[in-house]
Amino acid sequence: MNIFANLSPLDHRYHASDPELWRELSAVLSEEAYIGYQMRVEWALVQALENRNISPKGSAAEVHRACQRITPADVRAEEEITRHNVRALVNCIQREVSEEVRPFIHLTATSVDILDTARALQLRDAVDKVLLPRMEEFLRVLIDLAQKTADVPMVGRTHGQHGVPITFGFAMSEYVSRLGGRIEKIKEAKDNLRGKMAGAVGAYNASSLLFENPQDFEREVLALLGLKPGDHSTQIVEPEYVLDLMHALTSAFGVLANFADDMRHLQRTELSEVGEAFEEGQVGSSTMPHKRNPWNYEHVKSMWKAFMPRMMTVYMDQISEHQRDLTNSASARFVTEIVAALTMAVQRLTKVTKKLAVDKEQMLKNLELNAGLIVAEPLYILLAAHGHPDAHEAVRKLTLEAEKTGRSVVEIAQESPELSPYLAKFTPEQTKIISDPLTYTGQAAAKCKEICAVHLEKITKL
Amino acid sequence: MNIFANLSPLDHRYHASDPELWRELSAVLSEEAYIGYQMRVEWALVQALENRNISPKGSAAEVHRACQRITPADVRAEEEITRHNVRALVNCIQREVSEEVRPFIHLTATSVDILDTARALQLRDAVDKVLLPRMEEFLRVLIDLAQKTADVPMVGRTHGQHGVPITFGFAMSEYVSRLGGRIEKIKEAKDNLRGKMAGAVGAYNASSLLFENPQDFEREVLALLGLKPGDHSTQIVEPEYVLDLMHALTSAFGVLANFADDMRHLQRTELSEVGEAFEEGQVGSSTMPHKRNPWNYEHVKSMWKAFMPRMMTVYMDQISEHQRDLTNSASARFVTEIVAALTMAVQRLTKVTKKLAVDKEQMLKNLELNAGLIVAEPLYILLAAHGHPDAHEAVRKLTLEAEKTGRSVVEIAQESPELSPYLAKFTPEQTKIISDPLTYTGQAAAKCKEICAVHLEKITKL
Amino acid sequence: MNIFANLSPLDHRYHASDPELWRELSAVLSEEAYIGYQMRVEWALVQALENRNISPKGSAAEVHRACQRITPADVRAEEEITRHNVRALVNCIQREVSEEVRPFIHLTATSVDILDTARALQLRDAVDKVLLPRMEEFLRVLIDLAQKTADVPMVGRTHGQHGVPITFGFAMSEYVSRLGGRIEKIKEAKDNLRGKMAGAVGAYNASSLLFENPQDFEREVLALLGLKPGDHSTQIVEPEYVLDLMHALTSAFGVLANFADDMRHLQRTELSEVGEAFEEGQVGSSTMPHKRNPWNYEHVKSMWKAFMPRMMTVYMDQISEHQRDLTNSASARFVTEIVAALTMAVQRLTKVTKKLAVDKEQMLKNLELNAGLIVAEPLYILLAAHGHPDAHEAVRKLTLEAEKTGRSVVEIAQESPELSPYLAKFTPEQTKIISDPLTYTGQAAAKCKEICAVHLEKITKL
Amino acid sequence: MNIFANLSPLDHRYHASDPELWRELSAVLSEEAYIGYQMRVEWALVQALENRNISPKGSAAEVHRACQRITPADVRAEEEITRHNVRALVNCIQREVSEEVRPFIHLTATSVDILDTARALQLRDAVDKVLLPRMEEFLRVLIDLAQKTADVPMVGRTHGQHGVPITFGFAMSEYVSRLGGRIEKIKEAKDNLRGKMAGAVGAYNASSLLFENPQDFEREVLALLGLKPGDHSTQIVEPEYVLDLMHALTSAFGVLANFADDMRHLQRTELSEVGEAFEEGQVGSSTMPHKRNPWNYEHVKSMWKAFMPRMMTVYMDQISEHQRDLTNSASARFVTEIVAALTMAVQRLTKVTKKLAVDKEQMLKNLELNAGLIVAEPLYILLAAHGHPDAHEAVRKLTLEAEKTGRSVVEIAQESPELSPYLAKFTPEQTKIISDPLTYTGQAAAKCKEICAVHLEKITKL
Repeated sequence: MNIFANLSPLDHRYHASDPELWRELSAVLSEEAYIGYQMRVEWALVQALENRNISPKGSAAEVHRACQRITPADVRAEEEITRHNVRALVNCIQREVSEEVRPFIHLTATSVDILDTARALQLRDAVDKVLLPRMEEFLRVLIDLAQKTADVPMVGRTHGQHGVPITFGFAMSEYVSRLGGRIEKIKEAKDNLRGKMAGAVGAYNASSLLFENPQDFEREVLALLGLKPGDHSTQIVEPEYVLDLMHALTSAFGVLANFADDMRHLQRTELSEVGEAFEEGQVGSSTMPHKRNPWNYEHVKSMWKAFMPRMMTVYMDQISEHQRDLTNSASARFVTEIVAALTMAVQRLTKVTKKLAVDKEQMLKNLELNAGLIVAEPLYILLAAHGHPDAHEAVRKLTLEAEKTGRSVVEIAQESPELSPYLAKFTPEQTKIISDPLTYTGQAAAKCKEICAVHLEKITKL
Repeated sequence: MNIFANLSPLDHRYHASDPELWRELSAVLSEEAYIGYQMRVEWALVQALENRNISPKGSAAEVHRACQRITPADVRAEEEITRHNVRALVNCIQREVSEEVRPFIHLTATSVDILDTARALQLRDAVDKVLLPRMEEFLRVLIDLAQKTADVPMVGRTHGQHGVPITFGFAMSEYVSRLGGRIEKIKEAKDNLRGKMAGAVGAYNASSLLFENPQDFEREVLALLGLKPGDHSTQIVEPEYVLDLMHALTSAFGVLANFADDMRHLQRTELSEVGEAFEEGQVGSSTMPHKRNPWNYEHVKSMWKAFMPRMMTVYMDQISEHQRDLTNSASARFVTEIVAALTMAVQRLTKVTKKLAVDKEQMLKNLELNAGLIVAEPLYILLAAHGHPDAHEAVRKLTLEAEKTGRSVVEIAQESPELSPYLAKFTPEQTKIISDPLTYTGQAAAKCKEICAVHLEKITKL
Repeated sequence: MNIFANLSPLDHRYHASDPELWRELSAVLSEEAYIGYQMRVEWALVQALENRNISPKGSAAEVHRACQRITPADVRAEEEITRHNVRALVNCIQREVSEEVRPFIHLTATSVDILDTARALQLRDAVDKVLLPRMEEFLRVLIDLAQKTADVPMVGRTHGQHGVPITFGFAMSEYVSRLGGRIEKIKEAKDNLRGKMAGAVGAYNASSLLFENPQDFEREVLALLGLKPGDHSTQIVEPEYVLDLMHALTSAFGVLANFADDMRHLQRTELSEVGEAFEEGQVGSSTMPHKRNPWNYEHVKSMWKAFMPRMMTVYMDQISEHQRDLTNSASARFVTEIVAALTMAVQRLTKVTKKLAVDKEQMLKNLELNAGLIVAEPLYILLAAHGHPDAHEAVRKLTLEAEKTGRSVVEIAQESPELSPYLAKFTPEQTKIISDPLTYTGQAAAKCKEICAVHLEKITKL
Repeated sequence: MNIFANLSPLDHRYHASDPELWRELSAVLSEEAYIGYQMRVEWALVQALENRNISPKGSAAEVHRACQRITPADVRAEEEITRHNVRALVNCIQREVSEEVRPFIHLTATSVDILDTARALQLRDAVDKVLLPRMEEFLRVLIDLAQKTADVPMVGRTHGQHGVPITFGFAMSEYVSRLGGRIEKIKEAKDNLRGKMAGAVGAYNASSLLFENPQDFEREVLALLGLKPGDHSTQIVEPEYVLDLMHALTSAFGVLANFADDMRHLQRTELSEVGEAFEEGQVGSSTMPHKRNPWNYEHVKSMWKAFMPRMMTVYMDQISEHQRDLTNSASARFVTEIVAALTMAVQRLTKVTKKLAVDKEQMLKNLELNAGLIVAEPLYILLAAHGHPDAHEAVRKLTLEAEKTGRSVVEIAQESPELSPYLAKFTPEQTKIISDPLTYTGQAAAKCKEICAVHLEKITKL
């Protein structure tokens, strides 16, 4: 199989870069897998008919065996004739079962009963079996990193400017918290995926011919697959179930992209606070032999740019005329790519973040660059708390003078007849922070540990 | 005030078309309202400081009085000097309070503590006070319409083609269900909006100078405003709380757009199943005096096109470098427009749908167009259920012959030596449906009533 | 090769549905093809070095032979070590050439010189060889259809409501004009794709070591590939060249989607003015054997929904920090999918539109539905032109009365003492149109023929 | 007028921050301005009718005078009755003219003839009078900045990592080139805006009643407004003319956003190569008195995030059913906001960039950080050019050793028995660059000057 002939980067370059992951994704998200899920739904339908003594005893087992013999290529060949993918599948199954069982294949169902239910199964499994385990692994990596560095001081940056100190673990705990939150959203939306067995326009027209309570029958079929029916169906399941899942996935991707962006920037030559580990033989630039680029983090940000806008498609697919137009036929197929791309991104982040080099010395060095100015905030707060009527302005002027003269803010303040009386009121702890502003990290370490503990417990429970 | 000089259609054309609604929206979503919410947060902060005996007794009351005197124009004038909107507000408040209280204004807070918390309040109020009551009113209108037409037969349409029959009420109950679901999502997301009082980089650096447990202090301030703190903050609240709300709103907008689209299409000249009521004097076309256009439903679809893509902005705003860059400064301001536009759309739909004319005769006439063919589905199902091994194909050929000869499908079937033995096995109910396919509406009426009952109870509970 | 194991619908379902087209697309847009274009650039570089007597005589020929031996799998294997795709390619080439030639492989180039130039070649060829011939074929199909139906009357529809008459050819000529215009935009943007050979940061640092005028050298290398250099480069070519092409493609996709949407709606059961031809054995619905769905047109609209939002990615890729960040590494790879999807859509439209059934009788029947009302517009215009001071209002009232009484607008007008004097002033041609409003088609036929002639000439010239 | 009560940030906060610019924008882009343009089109129509002796002599002058008396509030009041904005306007004009002229108001036109033509005028004027002069002023500022700093060395950065040297002027010339290119695109698209006077469905049905060649009449009316007709019209002008303009604007916005992003990053504390000038009294942070944030550049990036996604709306508006649905009624109104926002962004950039502080010393300091490693690229190129068979690998190892030992790359190379023979072959110029890698700026200065000269000439010509 020459994967390099494929059109989609997912099926050539990103297949080649991690064949094992690609295979796992293919097992749930490929067309082959999708047809497999469709057969599973057709099988469950006959099982329920058999349970109700409508189809002959043993018919479900017969269908099960039949399905194991059918290949995607068989279905495709049949579709060349029918120009209808589900009819093609039904024909294939019918060909493989006895004449007695044949009429009961697909009975009461419309194509989309099979397709939408199969899509729910496929997405559920992709999330459960492939995505979530990796997300949780990555969350563990982040928790581990945050816990280990909970007390490592670094400068907090807002607007790209030095603000006041935090710790590296605190910065990492942001992503523990946000990603942990998104994992819950994903689970919630995944558990709310729904199927249907409500027929051509959702009104159970066909199944009403056979059953007094066709909604009960729908529940029975879907229960065999571990699903519930949607609250209302037309020809299709209400689109909001899948939409909510895609929102959960896309917003999780946004958190990963933000993390990747931060890691990129912390690797800037002038910052150099973290580094992607380099393999022996790895090349940073084809022409600049000295370069070492944060290419894995760049890749993840880039994948987000490629996949985030696809939410627009999912939002557009909310609109379907009357009991359904088919203008979501192709577009809805591509949602599986969102799951695949997100999983690839998580996998990549896990690998590279596990080996992330954290340069504590450089963090301290950067922090010290403006140590003299960092004192501005606590000084202003303490002056105000001790009653100075215009502390912010007073300190703003101090910092300008400090910049001009090269002296420290505290020094100037202590010599000021206006300010020194307030300084005298400071508690020893307060004075200590003013004297050593690098300790001005507030609850950074504590909050980091608290968040890590919360999310570690949540994961462990699962 | 010459509103027609404004740049935004929200502030000229859509202001003019419903001034009362515009005023209600302005009261929560305008810049004036936003500054009001900011003052409320500054006030709560001083209240909490007073409760802890840090600021003097009576300081909160003093701040409250001060805030009542401050206008947006005052703040703006001050901002011309400070080039910083929150500092401008703080200066304005400080000018209006006694020298004793002055230092405690804004103490320990960073600007975004005020801004993000005020944004949460503003969005919460806009949803609670302006949007949700209108959404629920519209839901009632839909429920009422669905209940009244639960038994009105119409053709179910898929791919724009006649399928099998439903009832108009069933078609309406789709929107009862989907909109009802979205209302719950909106409430959930609205109740999960969060504030912060965690300082410049989220690590409680400043408040740690004054309090042993600054997270408790944060909870106290926010409790005064009816909010909880975010799980983790940098300079900003985690963006996912607002993002989830915007997703809920945008996906609700999608449901409305789908409804509007259906109403548009049902008004097509050839369908004419429903109609927007026309006022005396109303003009359909400036040149075609006979035209009556579904312009309100077109408008709602069009507003969705204008506002749905703005989700991209909200997704982009998930990314903020380090402890925050400010590249969401402007973009985050525009999210309030999404709330306004959605509210306007709901209001419009309520007005026009209340007076919707439903033409039962036309529905029946359209349904009868293909009555002879509609029988195809139940016939196929019943043949199969009674054991015909290839019923779908048999009926497909019947319909082709019916088309050619102009005879009815049932007639041809009854004369067929191959099919008539199966027809003989049909139950009386089954035979009845075959003879009168317009009764082939399945659970349409029942499902419609069930859904209406569920959602009516939910609304009534609130 | 089990294509059904692939993740992307482009590489499974849409591969299977047209393998021949897929192969043509793969030949220019796959990873294999991309690596081929990269080798072509490396070869052109050595050719230019040889032309300037920097690399030995025969070195270009040697590189050419080497490239024919290198497979994508070789490059991939090497990339496993280098973690850098272009360095991997360079290593592969170097291994296949003599020691004398080896140092001149890639000399002065940075990776992106190769990659961006190869991307320009790839996109140029994909547009020239695969997309444009199909677009022009489809344009011919449309012209042919428009010309054949230039005089077939149908009702003009605005807001889904009957307006005044046009001809079907006129409706088709809309798409001749818009698609013809987009084809020109595509050509223009394709001809403006650019390459670069300006080195690591675009300042010709490396090539300045060897050449007095490195911009001349860049022009020489690119001329060998039929390209020009970008106006300014950093590490990358200015992103606007590709962006403009993607805009041209996406906006052409929008025209196709609009056409597809119209064809869908004209196939609505109640309209039935056109039809997709059905193959023997084709199935419309798995459960409704009588259904015939406009699934090809639905598919094209759906593909547009899947691909249009990807423009957001291309707009985001305009932003790259300093002399380049790499956050377009993955996202820029996916632009090739836009070309592939658009080509597939055009191909599909050509096939189905070639066999489009146009039902003139049904068009006439629909037109006649409101023939009595259509007269409203010409009557108003003529009354006004002959001096009636309030013709629009007068006719609006006439139509209301006509609706109520079931009589024709003209009849009522002729009996009106207020209006009949104006009617008397009408010219014979004017009176004729009032009497036979179905002839009120204006310039529909003439404009249709004019547009077809213009675009036929443009295509024929090429 | 309490602008702070408005809903849109464009009409409150960004109005307040630059009232003069807001007024200029309002004069072309507000609803009031739009109605003015509509009257101008109605006037031109009567002028053309008068020129053809259909309406009485003096009728155009009468309409002109009438229009000067009509206010937006008048039209709005009338619309309350007609529920149709253009009919309302026509009624208003008719009320203000003599009975003889009355019938000729709007004669042969459909509403959209007026609206789409007025939109083209409005967009043309907004671009010509408000946007382009500011864009060109900003381009001059950039050219001036680039020319003044053409020779100022700085490090070239790729992946956020130091690469090889450039000059600051070269970095600025990127934006001269890209913005200059976008200005041309904007002009081209603006000059290609079109009007129509083709009636209700675009087939000149109404005007064919009066004119033998109604296309000539259309050209005459539009010529009075300086416009040409679209190639084909339905009820609306082909949407691609406006779409292409919006693409040109949005892609120009992308260039500005990239520039703003670079300026942000160059202001990072650790880089500090440029700075926004601070006003006396300006506050960087409400709590950190020492902060100075790049808030203007952040603002521009943020505005881009708010407005770029709106292109999706414009792409969606390409689709309109049959001869037009009205689902672009609201969405198309919002495109004017794109023009307004882009103009505001340009204005902001001009102000702040004019006063940009460029810190040459800091640039040099940053450049020197890795001077020892920068030599890697020229050394590799020269070794290869002089025949070393594996120069890239050799230099990669040198850099690793240099990193380990702290010695310079050149030093180690010179002592290497393997490399020193190649070094001996270097020309004096080549040796000079190796010894002083800070001079390794290639064509940076020359290219910068060349680009500035090209664009200065283009602007000057206009």
